[in-house]
Amino acid sequence: MVAVTRWFVYFAPMPTTTAFVHATVIDGLGGPPLRDGTIVVEEQRFSAVGTGDRTPVPPGAHVIDLRGRYVVPGFVNGNVHLLDGIMMMGVGGVEYLARHEGRLTQVIEESAQVALKAGVTTVFDTWNATGPVLAARDRIAAGAVPGARVFAAGNIVGFGGPFGADFHLAASRVISPTFAGRMNRLFEAGVGPHLSLLPAREVRPVIRDYLARGVDMVKVGVTDHLTGIWGFERSYLMFSERVLRVIAEETHAAGLPLLSHTMSVEGLRSALDIGTNVLIHASITSQRPIPHELVGCTAGLQTVTSGYQGRLEASDSFWAMYGGGVHAANEKLILEAGVPVMLGTDAGCTPRDVLADAGEDGDPERPWTLGTDHVAWARGITEKGMTPTEAIAASTSAVARAYGKQEELGSIMAGRRADLVVLRDDPLEDVAALGTVVDVYQDGRRVDRDALPLRPLVTAPTPARP
Amino acid sequence: MVAVTRWFVYFAPMPTTTAFVHATVIDGLGGPPLRDGTIVVEEQRFSAVGTGDRTPVPPGAHVIDLRGRYVVPGFVNGNVHLLDGIMMMGVGGVEYLARHEGRLTQVIEESAQVALKAGVTTVFDTWNATGPVLAARDRIAAGAVPGARVFAAGNIVGFGGPFGADFHLAASRVISPTFAGRMNRLFEAGVGPHLSLLPAREVRPVIRDYLARGVDMVKVGVTDHLTGIWGFERSYLMFSERVLRVIAEETHAAGLPLLSHTMSVEGLRSALDIGTNVLIHASITSQRPIPHELVGCTAGLQTVTSGYQGRLEASDSFWAMYGGGVHAANEKLILEAGVPVMLGTDAGCTPRDVLADAGEDGDPERPWTLGTDHVAWARGITEKGMTPTEAIAASTSAVARAYGKQEELGSIMAGRRADLVVLRDDPLEDVAALGTVVDVYQDGRRVDRDALPLRPLVTAPTPARP
Amino acid sequence: MVAVTRWFVYFAPMPTTTAFVHATVIDGLGGPPLRDGTIVVEEQRFSAVGTGDRTPVPPGAHVIDLRGRYVVPGFVNGNVHLLDGIMMMGVGGVEYLARHEGRLTQVIEESAQVALKAGVTTVFDTWNATGPVLAARDRIAAGAVPGARVFAAGNIVGFGGPFGADFHLAASRVISPTFAGRMNRLFEAGVGPHLSLLPAREVRPVIRDYLARGVDMVKVGVTDHLTGIWGFERSYLMFSERVLRVIAEETHAAGLPLLSHTMSVEGLRSALDIGTNVLIHASITSQRPIPHELVGCTAGLQTVTSGYQGRLEASDSFWAMYGGGVHAANEKLILEAGVPVMLGTDAGCTPRDVLADAGEDGDPERPWTLGTDHVAWARGITEKGMTPTEAIAASTSAVARAYGKQEELGSIMAGRRADLVVLRDDPLEDVAALGTVVDVYQDGRRVDRDALPLRPLVTAPTPARP
Amino acid sequence: MVAVTRWFVYFAPMPTTTAFVHATVIDGLGGPPLRDGTIVVEEQRFSAVGTGDRTPVPPGAHVIDLRGRYVVPGFVNGNVHLLDGIMMMGVGGVEYLARHEGRLTQVIEESAQVALKAGVTTVFDTWNATGPVLAARDRIAAGAVPGARVFAAGNIVGFGGPFGADFHLAASRVISPTFAGRMNRLFEAGVGPHLSLLPAREVRPVIRDYLARGVDMVKVGVTDHLTGIWGFERSYLMFSERVLRVIAEETHAAGLPLLSHTMSVEGLRSALDIGTNVLIHASITSQRPIPHELVGCTAGLQTVTSGYQGRLEASDSFWAMYGGGVHAANEKLILEAGVPVMLGTDAGCTPRDVLADAGEDGDPERPWTLGTDHVAWARGITEKGMTPTEAIAASTSAVARAYGKQEELGSIMAGRRADLVVLRDDPLEDVAALGTVVDVYQDGRRVDRDALPLRPLVTAPTPARP
Repeated sequence: MVAVTRWFVYFAPMPTTTAFVHATVIDGLGGPPLRDGTIVVEEQRFSAVGTGDRTPVPPGAHVIDLRGRYVVPGFVNGNVHLLDGIMMMGVGGVEYLARHEGRLTQVIEESAQVALKAGVTTVFDTWNATGPVLAARDRIAAGAVPGARVFAAGNIVGFGGPFGADFHLAASRVISPTFAGRMNRLFEAGVGPHLSLLPAREVRPVIRDYLARGVDMVKVGVTDHLTGIWGFERSYLMFSERVLRVIAEETHAAGLPLLSHTMSVEGLRSALDIGTNVLIHASITSQRPIPHELVGCTAGLQTVTSGYQGRLEASDSFWAMYGGGVHAANEKLILEAGVPVMLGTDAGCTPRDVLADAGEDGDPERPWTLGTDHVAWARGITEKGMTPTEAIAASTSAVARAYGKQEELGSIMAGRRADLVVLRDDPLEDVAALGTVVDVYQDGRRVDRDALPLRPLVTAPTPARP
Repeated sequence: MVAVTRWFVYFAPMPTTTAFVHATVIDGLGGPPLRDGTIVVEEQRFSAVGTGDRTPVPPGAHVIDLRGRYVVPGFVNGNVHLLDGIMMMGVGGVEYLARHEGRLTQVIEESAQVALKAGVTTVFDTWNATGPVLAARDRIAAGAVPGARVFAAGNIVGFGGPFGADFHLAASRVISPTFAGRMNRLFEAGVGPHLSLLPAREVRPVIRDYLARGVDMVKVGVTDHLTGIWGFERSYLMFSERVLRVIAEETHAAGLPLLSHTMSVEGLRSALDIGTNVLIHASITSQRPIPHELVGCTAGLQTVTSGYQGRLEASDSFWAMYGGGVHAANEKLILEAGVPVMLGTDAGCTPRDVLADAGEDGDPERPWTLGTDHVAWARGITEKGMTPTEAIAASTSAVARAYGKQEELGSIMAGRRADLVVLRDDPLEDVAALGTVVDVYQDGRRVDRDALPLRPLVTAPTPARP
Repeated sequence: MVAVTRWFVYFAPMPTTTAFVHATVIDGLGGPPLRDGTIVVEEQRFSAVGTGDRTPVPPGAHVIDLRGRYVVPGFVNGNVHLLDGIMMMGVGGVEYLARHEGRLTQVIEESAQVALKAGVTTVFDTWNATGPVLAARDRIAAGAVPGARVFAAGNIVGFGGPFGADFHLAASRVISPTFAGRMNRLFEAGVGPHLSLLPAREVRPVIRDYLARGVDMVKVGVTDHLTGIWGFERSYLMFSERVLRVIAEETHAAGLPLLSHTMSVEGLRSALDIGTNVLIHASITSQRPIPHELVGCTAGLQTVTSGYQGRLEASDSFWAMYGGGVHAANEKLILEAGVPVMLGTDAGCTPRDVLADAGEDGDPERPWTLGTDHVAWARGITEKGMTPTEAIAASTSAVARAYGKQEELGSIMAGRRADLVVLRDDPLEDVAALGTVVDVYQDGRRVDRDALPLRPLVTAPTPARP
Repeated sequence: MVAVTRWFVYFAPMPTTTAFVHATVIDGLGGPPLRDGTIVVEEQRFSAVGTGDRTPVPPGAHVIDLRGRYVVPGFVNGNVHLLDGIMMMGVGGVEYLARHEGRLTQVIEESAQVALKAGVTTVFDTWNATGPVLAARDRIAAGAVPGARVFAAGNIVGFGGPFGADFHLAASRVISPTFAGRMNRLFEAGVGPHLSLLPAREVRPVIRDYLARGVDMVKVGVTDHLTGIWGFERSYLMFSERVLRVIAEETHAAGLPLLSHTMSVEGLRSALDIGTNVLIHASITSQRPIPHELVGCTAGLQTVTSGYQGRLEASDSFWAMYGGGVHAANEKLILEAGVPVMLGTDAGCTPRDVLADAGEDGDPERPWTLGTDHVAWARGITEKGMTPTEAIAASTSAVARAYGKQEELGSIMAGRRADLVVLRDDPLEDVAALGTVVDVYQDGRRVDRDALPLRPLVTAPTPARP
């Protein structure tokens, strides 16, 4: 039983004011690096950022000398699934849920800790078991456990649970229906597939009830998940525009960002029509080119390195469709159009068995492994044409902006939360240096990275058991 | 080899003018029967209809005395699949298509002959292999072979072929992909599932090409077929409203009726919004009640007898959903609202093996067996509240009206095509008497019912082979 | 963490000598009950059994007055699977193994505790994960944990693990191959399916290695498991008679009993030919009658109550074949021939989810639920013609004799281990009274039944988790 | 309906006596070629064979000058399936049987004609639909239709039909059970899988009844077919040795050869123990090496060219196991031991669709395509070490000897049936020259190769249909 006590023991105690001096500061906003920079942190936020000569260290401040180091904002991942969602579409999901049922909140916390250890100080979880992810979010926010700061959408509106047709229907045939039903209900959280059968006026109160659960954003399944999963060359619309508008209205009325899942050009257009704020994996359009007039509005983008893509294609993997063919062309189109693009990886903590199945345990190119995913993403996106500076902005301030959190986080600027990552090597020279993490600070406090994850369940060697 | 010569040998030669006298005439328009009626036929059309005392027999006319007989218009079935579509969703479709490949046109003609033999002088085929059904339609229209008059939609726009996910995906895993692909292309006819991925402006020329093939109407998959087939409790929209409007515009611009396939309330609403003319199986809404405001516009309705429905439910059959639960309530709602309802049965000629599998060979209640389907439908619909007179109108003039053919056929009225059925028993007393066919006339000519079907392929005992 | 310390706390401490007096004693050997019986226990064994007037209570003995109570030997179940084997052939096995991996020994101990609580003081486990079941056996034997005394065969020679074709091949397609392989190896323990490919001289050293692991008996798959599981109307022989003889020779040379799994008449004959000691479920012969000449040697027999069998048949259950049709006739034949028959149930502890799926949680007639299985068996076997006295002998001394343990256990006789069950009601009047357990003694010590199972994993309500 | 009249029209009429002169004669018995040879044919048999100077041409003989040509005996294929058996284990079998049901005899005749056209004058069909293959055999023997001379085993004793677990169980789930059952019964012919459940004394009369149907040989399933098909690493025995002996006794008592299907070393040993005459695909032992003591008795051998094997392995084909890994080593072992080896290919006429699926339409290396299979086999076997002379003997006299027909056919020797093939190129130089057929003579009559196959059903382009 994890005791719900504050975990301050995991942070080194800090004085009220800290000054990081002599650092090369990359502020996450896309400008040139600040050489010999000074960053002052007070009350968990940045209070001053500037060159050493212009930025005095407040008297009594704890001074940290970062000579030869590089500082970037804490990374912000705009699309993760802290219960591994990618894996649940293939083998492994049954064991995962059976093994961890009753402690999914802990599994989510473990993922958030793995992310934090790598410098990802904030994540946006865009599909997950609603109850457990909100519980983990709250426990981390309250300081009961360490972890990347979590914002959560819960279920994707209209999607079924892990053992329905949207994820792993085949699994449902070999497992206990009682178990499958319990899991499905846990994920669907009242906004599951039956919504596709309801007229707009019946959908409205369902969305209101869902918002009342306290989600941070709403993700709507504009297109279906099923046909993409099954490899069919088609894509359905989950909802009529009448219903989509109701979902958008309610979400925006609650002051929350609206996210979309789309797999087709028509889906993208409908998402844009209703004022979607974050278009998740906009480049995935069932291999049809995005028309020019839609490109200008696009925002979300997953990507993989060309090396990994090559391996996916060589092994005829299902996932080759993720960034291959027309989808790669779509990515390029989006980048060339200067559309705001943000870091999003679909990553989670994958069980060791599944990594072993794929021969990808420890593979730094695997795009869905929390802890290294954001570095692989940065490598992939720079291959596609971004500069390192742009890639860093896309991994920090751009995500915050997409979700309307730019006043709070995502850049090293006075007033923002003091999330920063100290790097050994220069990421502007080689973006892979984003992985050379020396230290991570979240809300101005140093993270005890060696202690994370606290109590490995998923990332532990199988089958360590009491 | 069927020679393409006129098959007049199957008709008794007729003089230019015929008069049926002393008949009880039910004109198909819903009025009271005409006792001691006289019907005059000239040039393949009715030229006069009235009581014997008011309707003189033209001099030189061939006179047929129908004392004690009952005359109704030739039946018009608004929803058939002359290649058995119901069967293709279960077992049997692979053998059916493999066995008859290369002579599907003959199989369709066989079905049209089985229908004609039972008095169904016109059918609207709303899903079929486009090329073969148009060929059969033309051969029947040209008099090359006998058969019910056929109007054909070809593929349902957006649907995949028989071995795709919309009908029998499992089959595709055990058959030759080359064969499966050839069959799928034959059915899809260029308007298959890939349309769901196209924006409106790319859909428009595809629909124009399809219309140019000469179909008589266009049926659009407003909702998907897949989730209904697989028993999922959801229903997707195949197309955005943008695309739906393009399909409707092009169809109406070509002067053709637009039909819809829907499986949800939202689908029904979209179909109505775009001006759909015929709502096929409107009562099937994935078990959600049709809202009151939508009822007023509904037109199409399948039904089954309560006896058959009872058996479906007792055996836990997939097809129990066809007319069970909320769907039965929807049927009732539609009928009570006085919405125009037409005969439609999804019927075809089912192979003997499949009938044997189900224990339904020769079963008069099976709603999908051409030749008896319309009688079973009439029994079912009168159980739900129609009078026999209404059921006859629904099986004749109502269908013609739904398809805009009311000036041509569907009633015993001067000017209409002289399609009529002579019955032994009074259908107004017991609607099952629609099955007591004594004689059938199509375009004023007596059908040689004993000769039909000419060359049985599907309805022959298996495996009679040369 | 379960500490490996002696669990004597679960036994009430006992003096060296105990006398049970005024009991009605049914000795398990088939004779008439002893009224007003006295049973003396010394050093964990019975030292005297007789009527009160002839059997003096030793001075200083602890005296327990059982006036009005009935005493039977501790039950001995000749065929259990402490990891639920029946369940692993259907849904639920994946979750079961995923959930409990790393603590299968504890799950086995839980089952042994559930059995002990119900008076089953000894079980013969005839299929299980070899390592865990031997570990549990040893921990129970050493007094580290309570539980029914376990004798274990480990794997069935030639059978594959739970995710191979012999149990649940379909499951292997939706789970991690790494996980599946690890589980399969755990169960196969070196004597898996590849043995069917080896000539006799290569099989011999494999069997010797297996015997060296310390199993208590060897069970050989004379016929396959696969075709029975899949419902095929056939049965293969796993091994040639050449190989079977080698397995029998090595087992008997090690002084161990040989058990057989057979599903056909030919399998039964081969099992008899090689001197098999215990013929597990001999009545199951793929619905072919056992020839008369084979009946004389048969020993093992599963059975179910007619009520449960009726339900299986009504719901068209796979398990209806277990005791239905010709198999019921075989049972009768065996009983009428006077063949020694023993209690064997295939029972284990089934997860609550799976019981809920089947609507059988708490169902006293379910034949595979440890704790009530032996009572259901006794009811079933008396329905088939045994007297209660015979059913009790079949559940105690007959099992011991089949396994060559009759000098050790299975009867209330001087020299035997002091395992006994005190009943409230008279089982000779109604055999269901075997379920009215008042007290259980194992090796002369009173079992603290209220404490069992110590730490429920499988039988706990789902999903109680730390 | 094909009329059963003699097809002499397909042969050029011949005088009583024919002399082939100036040929290079390879007699099929393994000796050196006879240069400038003369072959005299009288009454459908060879009457003299010798050098031109020693072998006078009888007066009045029709003389055929074969200067520059090579003559070999008509090929004899010891293992074919004239209804394509290989294909029935993958996709295509459903369509094949559905398409041709009711004319399987014609399909078999078509295969025999394709074989004959290529110079294969005799085939031994070792698995087929019993009724149709015996009918085709009889029609060919009676001269009603042309074709390779057929000897047929019918079903493999113990095997299920094409839609059972032994061939294509998955297919049975998507087709009509009535159809599947009818097909299965047609193939099983009373000696299907239920035999595995019967004791020896019940098997005996079943075998007698089967022999009474007039089969030419009996093939027994010593090991199962199922596990090999499904890729399981195991192999069962279908029958006890008690039952195997009964099958062997009855077959030999009827004077017929006994063939075995085996997939394991133990199976091979059992086959040898009961005096099997022809060990079909003896080298296939589920990848276990054949022990040395068994090699001396082996006789049957399939093989593929290394090129084709390489492609199978590169594409990870199921069929790679046919000649790969230990099986290739087994082949080598058998050849080095000098065991008599015969041509056997499992070939049939594969539908065009299935060939297109595999990209192997017209592929001369495909080992299962009748017409080119024997040439591919000869290429494969010479790669493994045979000389061309040995390969020719293995393709002619060796097969005849294995089946006890050496006095009748398989060599160019006085007294044998006058089956011969005239080749353009020298096969002793390059064994691929066996495919350079100029003329084929069967029973002394020239085959009208251009006319074959008479009425293509399977080998016609799809879907030519009346």
